Order: sequence, then structure tokens, then C-alpha cells
Amino acid sequence: MHQNSNVSINERYQRGWEKLREIDGEAGEKVIAALADIAPDFARYLIEFPFGDIYSRPQLDLKSREVAVVAALTALGNATPQLKVHIEAALNVGCTREEVTEVIMQMAVYAGFPAALNGLFAAKEVFAALDA
Amino acid sequence: MHQNSNVSINERYQRGWEKLREIDGEAGEKVIAALADIAPDFARYLIEFPFGDIYSRPQLDLKSREVAVVAALTALGNATPQLKVHIEAALNVGCTREEVTEVIMQMAVYAGFPAALNGLFAAKEVFAALDA
Amino acid sequence: MHQNSNVSINERYQRGWEKLREIDGEAGEKVIAALADIAPDFARYLIEFPFGDIYSRPQLDLKSREVAVVAALTALGNATPQLKVHIEAALNVGCTREEVTEVIMQMAVYAGFPAALNGLFAAKEVFAALDA
Amino acid sequence: MHQNSNVSINERYQRGWEKLREIDGEAGEKVIAALADIAPDFARYLIEFPFGDIYSRPQLDLKSREVAVVAALTALGNATPQLKVHIEAALNVGCTREEVTEVIMQMAVYAGFPAALNGLFAAKEVFAALDA
Amino acid sequence: MHQNSNVSINERYQRGWEKLREIDGEAGEKVIAALADIAPDFARYLIEFPFGDIYSRPQLDLKSREVAVVAALTALGNATPQLKVHIEAALNVGCTREEVTEVIMQMAVYAGFPAALNGLFAAKEVFAALDA
Amino acid sequence: MHQNSNVSINERYQRGWEKLREIDGEAGEKVIAALADIAPDFARYLIEFPFGDIYSRPQLDLKSREVAVVAALTALGNATPQLKVHIEAALNVGCTREEVTEVIMQMAVYAGFPAALNGLFAAKEVFAALDA
Repeated sequence: MHQNSNVSINERYQRGWEKLREIDGEAGEKVIAALADIAPDFARYLIEFPFGDIYSRPQLDLKSREVAVVAALTALGNATPQLKVHIEAALNVGCTREEVTEVIMQMAVYAGFPAALNGLFAAKEVFAALDA
Repeated sequence: MHQNSNVSINERYQRGWEKLREIDGEAGEKVIAALADIAPDFARYLIEFPFGDIYSRPQLDLKSREVAVVAALTALGNATPQLKVHIEAALNVGCTREEVTEVIMQMAVYAGFPAALNGLFAAKEVFAALDA
Repeated sequence: MHQNSNVSINERYQRGWEKLREIDGEAGEKVIAALADIAPDFARYLIEFPFGDIYSRPQLDLKSREVAVVAALTALGNATPQLKVHIEAALNVGCTREEVTEVIMQMAVYAGFPAALNGLFAAKEVFAALDA
Repeated sequence: MHQNSNVSINERYQRGWEKLREIDGEAGEKVIAALADIAPDFARYLIEFPFGDIYSRPQLDLKSREVAVVAALTALGNATPQLKVHIEAALNVGCTREEVTEVIMQMAVYAGFPAALNGLFAAKEVFAALDA
Repeated sequence: MHQNSNVSINERYQRGWEKLREIDGEAGEKVIAALADIAPDFARYLIEFPFGDIYSRPQLDLKSREVAVVAALTALGNATPQLKVHIEAALNVGCTREEVTEVIMQMAVYAGFPAALNGLFAAKEVFAALDA
Repeated sequence: MHQNSNVSINERYQRGWEKLREIDGEAGEKVIAALADIAPDFARYLIEFPFGDIYSRPQLDLKSREVAVVAALTALGNATPQLKVHIEAALNVGCTREEVTEVIMQMAVYAGFPAALNGLFAAKEVFAALDA
């Protein structure tokens, strides 16, 4: 039911890279590029484990996965750049702006109003950048 | 598109109470009961704001809302009782055990392996209790 | 002893709006305005629940409430804009600058020196803006 | 205005020990005793810095200090034993049970409902133990 | 300088398994076993990424790696079971009990006294279990 | 084995000041200076407790202490200015850039990829400033 564990390491990297581009688009590629001179191995791990392993699993659709990430990063409140990447990713995989906004608002219940407010203002910036 | 803001306070409480029972079932009622002697007003707020306001909004389906909560509480890692309530709530509103497990696993990427492990062990307890 | 639960929703909103202005002043109004185009319902919830419900309760004086918020937001360390709003709010409801500074310093014991340092530098900015 | 920095180290320790007993009572002494075989120096630091330095400062009354700690530990949500010690400490220095409950409830706004719920249940246990 | 990326997936898993046993010993094997019926794929990822990839890198000695983990988990304060596994792991790779205690004490500066206290009490339990 | 507790307060301050300069260099002195007009007593405590007490203890070498701090601040993710100071401090006391990078990368396992990414980008800035 999950990806074949006999797949070669190159296939895993390739699968991760394609999944990263499908979900995060240009924003994901920029993160990878920014790691090149400080921690190139970490760029490889980022492609292989989150994208080659986790996001490639068919047990959960990508839309639900992005709902989960937007919720978690809003609640944690200490990773704004990654939250912005995933607000855009949520739109890339089929969430509407209204759904993304709704997930962030809901976090007021679980992580407090400041976390939700900061998430909403991050979404506002992402939406404005897309409209520009 | 959202609930009518002219609704009376009693309707808001009533709507929240029904939503709480639909989502959290008996586990939710127990939380409310446990608040009776220490903070009865807080029980009322809990029914009114999260359930009467937020969960009653039609902009996001309940399944996505529970994916969001399970993700956030797994990532925060400091609210195990509430995480268990919402693992069961996710099943109540249509998530499969496999989907819930998958959301928790994904949190390894955003909040680390310990958070995901503790979430998985919480799910294991909830599933075992349901099977018993 | 607490607000009458038979109050109409409009009264609750009105009471919240007045409390928001009393506590947060212009800074609070700006937050509400900034939500208008992304999540107007959330602006309403923010007025209704925190201010119309919680801050309107007579069981705790506003000065103690602001001590509590400044402490919590300093300790959490991931909501600087809201911390600044509440440092100013603490002054609005009667705390001295010295008391606010003291609450933040105390957080070194409970959340570490970095959290306290970042809180102190936030206070320094707020005090400087007020003096300008 | 603050404690004389020429005070000797023994006076600082002594002052801290008396302040610890005034605020935390027996619960504080138990924490110190529990450290004896694992980290006795840490017990000394705990007496000297938080109690000998911070809590001995006259710039903020002890009641406000305990409001601040109860708020912060409720919001952080990962230090239940210390939260319980300070719920009792808040009562020791003059807060009513209602005020303590109110501070914890307010944290729903800043750290979410699960944090507030867990704080309220901690308070319930402390109050029950005091009544027994 | 780092592990050969042409290594096959089976070698990566094997390398991870051996590293897990070297560092975490029996406690690590128990975690893997506990995942068998809820999330066996997650057990595989846990072996492959943290142990097969990260801990197998020669750029940092295992003693420093365990100092880093004990520090981080003490500071986060929401993963006590994993902190205990790594307190024991630190001893397994050559830290003394005094060094482990010292790392935890130091966290009072960066995450507050409650986090450090809870870490010290976790260490006390681990040391007592080893002595029994 | 630890510092003599009969040392006078002036010696403790002096020892702390020298330790602060040894570890944090100019960056540490700037923090102290920035506190002068808002909380001069806090500057004194910062010198006395973390540096005069904790960092002056001989039970753990300074290199291990900085590994611990870089790990903890990366994992907490809400104290970037202090993380940068300690990335530089780690280099000051003998860590290589590669070791610092490695500690930060490892935090992906314990606090998630966003925390590690933000830590790596902080390190990139520190290294670039040192090279300029």
C-alpha cells in the first residue's frame, strides 16, 4: 500500500524532488537553492524524507496534508517563512483561499488568538503577493 | 455565508452544544461536566466560541477541521488529553484510522519525531479503548 | 456576579468593542481594521470573545489581567506584535513602566533569559514610541 | 530602590530561602529536598536567583508576581508540577481562588482552550488537596 | 566526507538499525517494537532518517550529539519519554552522569527553571533505574 | 569541585563578566549595553547567574555548553537574536562551522525541519558577517 521499499535511493530523491515541485513550486526550489552553500546534504534530506517519503504516501490526499501543515505551523507560531510557503502550497494542491483562512482562524481555539492573528497576516501577505 | 449574527445567545449556545456532541461525543460532554464545579462559565464559553462559532461555520468541512486539530495538538505536544478527544472526534466525523495515523506521522516533519511518536502512542491508546 | 447571559449579541459586541478601546486603544483598533479584507468574521470574534466575554468579567481587575498577558506573551516568545500591544495596554490600565519591566524580567525564571531579553527589548521600543 | 548589591552571598541565600518559604511554603521546600541527591548546587541557585534576587525585589507586589507566573505556566503548558506549586503560592500571597481561576481562564485567549483547560484541572486538584 | 549517497536502501536501513542499537540500546528497540501495530512504516523512517542518515554522519561525535539532544528535549519540555531515552543514550556514548546533569541545569538559563527541574527529575529516575 | 560559595558578590560579578567576554565577545557586551536604560539590574543578573554561576562551572567544557545552547535555541525557534550570538560563541570556544551546522541539522529530528532550516539560515548570516 505504501511506496516500494526496494526503490533505489536515486528514485527516492527523484520522487521527492517532483513532489516538492508539485506542492511547493518555486518557493520550495528557492529553499533548496538557499541551502546549497551552507548545508547541501540537508537540502538532500529535505527532498528525500519529507517529500520522497512522507508526502509521496498515498494514504492521505495532498489537500488534507496541507491543511495539517498550515494548522501546525500556525499553532507553533515560530516558523513564519515555512508557514507562508505552505499557505501557497495549500492553494497549489486545491485548497481555496477561504479554506486556508478558515484553518488559520480555527487555530485561535487551540493555540490562542495571537497565533491565529499572525497566521492570518501571513496569509494576507501571501495572497497579496499572488495578486501582484 | 456564515451563521447569522442576529441569532440569539441561546441559539448560539444550543448550536454549540449540538456541534460539540456531534464532534466530540461523550468525551466532550465529560469535559463540560468536569468544569462544573471549578469554572462553569468557562464550560459555557467552550460551548459557545469553539463549537457555536468556529465549528458551526460552513466554510470548512468537519473532516478537514479535525485533520487540522489533530495536526496542531500533535505538533504542540503539550495537550495530550485534548489530542485524544480529537483523535476520536476525527473518527466520529469520517476520518479513517489510517488517515489519522498519517496526519500524526506527518508531524515528524514539522515538529520533530518525539512529537509524532507521542501522538502515535496517543492514537494507539484511543484505538485500543474503542476496540475494547 | 458575571455578565448576564441573557444579554443580546449586539450588546456583547458593543461591550467588547468598548472594552477593546479602553484596554488596547488605537493599537487594538488597527488590528481590527487590518482584518477587514482577510477575515472580517475573525475581527468580530476577537471583539466578542476576548473582550466582550473575558475582559468584561469583573472577577479580576484589568491591571492584573494585563500583568497576566504580558507575562504569558513574554514567556511564549512567538507573538511580539501582540506583546507590544499589551505592554501599551498594561500602561493604559494603570501599570507603571517599572511594573511592566519587572513582570518581563521575572519571566527569565520561567521561560529563560532569551524570552525575557526579547520582552525587554519589545518594551524598550514601546516606551520609546510613546516618548516620541 | 533594589536590594543592596553589597549584600554578602550568605545574606542573598538566606533572603532567598525565607522568600521561598513565604511564597511556596512546604511545596517549595520539597522541591529543594528532591534536588539534594541529584543537583544540590541547582537547589542553591534556585534559592539564590529566583527567590533571593527576583522575588525579593520591591518593584512588584507578590500577588502580581504570582498572577504572572500562573499565567505564564498555564500558557506554556509543559510544567504542570510547577504550575500547581504556584497556584498554591498565589493563594499564599493573597489571591483568591476565583482570581486564580480567572487568570487561567484568560489564557484561553492567548494560548488556546487546551492550555486553559489543563490549567483549570490543575487548579481543581490543588483546591481539592487543600480542602482535604 | 559524508555517507556515500549511492548506498542502497537496505544498507541505509541496516546502518540505521545498528546506530540505533549503539546509541539507544534496548530503550530504542522498545520504541520500534511499540510502533509495529500502529505505524510500522514510521518505525522504518525512524531507523532510516534519524539514525541511518543523521547519527551516521561523521561530522560530529556521538557524545556531542547526545549533549545536543538532551539540551533540546529539556528545553522543549514536552517529550519526557524521549528525554529519558536520550539521557541513557548520553551515558551509552560516553557522557558522565555529572555531564548530563550539567547540560540539564544549564537549560535553566535558556528555557527557565521549570524546564530544568523537570529534566533533572527525569535524570534522577533514569539514574535510579540504572542502579536498580 | 564547583566555584567556592564563599566568594564575594563582586568576585561573582567579575567572574561572570570575564566569562561573558570570553564566550560571547563583543556581541555579549552589546546586549549588556542595550539593557542599560531599560533594565540595568537585569544586565547584572545576566552577568551573575548564567555567566558567573553556570558557565563558570568546571563540570562541562565550554564547547559542550555551546553545543547545548545552539541545539536548544534552534529547537525552541523563538529566540533568533540569541541563537546568532551563540552560533558565534560556539566558534569562539572551539567549535568548527561544520560542527555548528551539524548540531543545527540534527534538530530537524527533534523539533522539525522548519526549526532546523531557520537555524541554518541564522548560521549562514553569522558566517557571512564574520567573512565580511
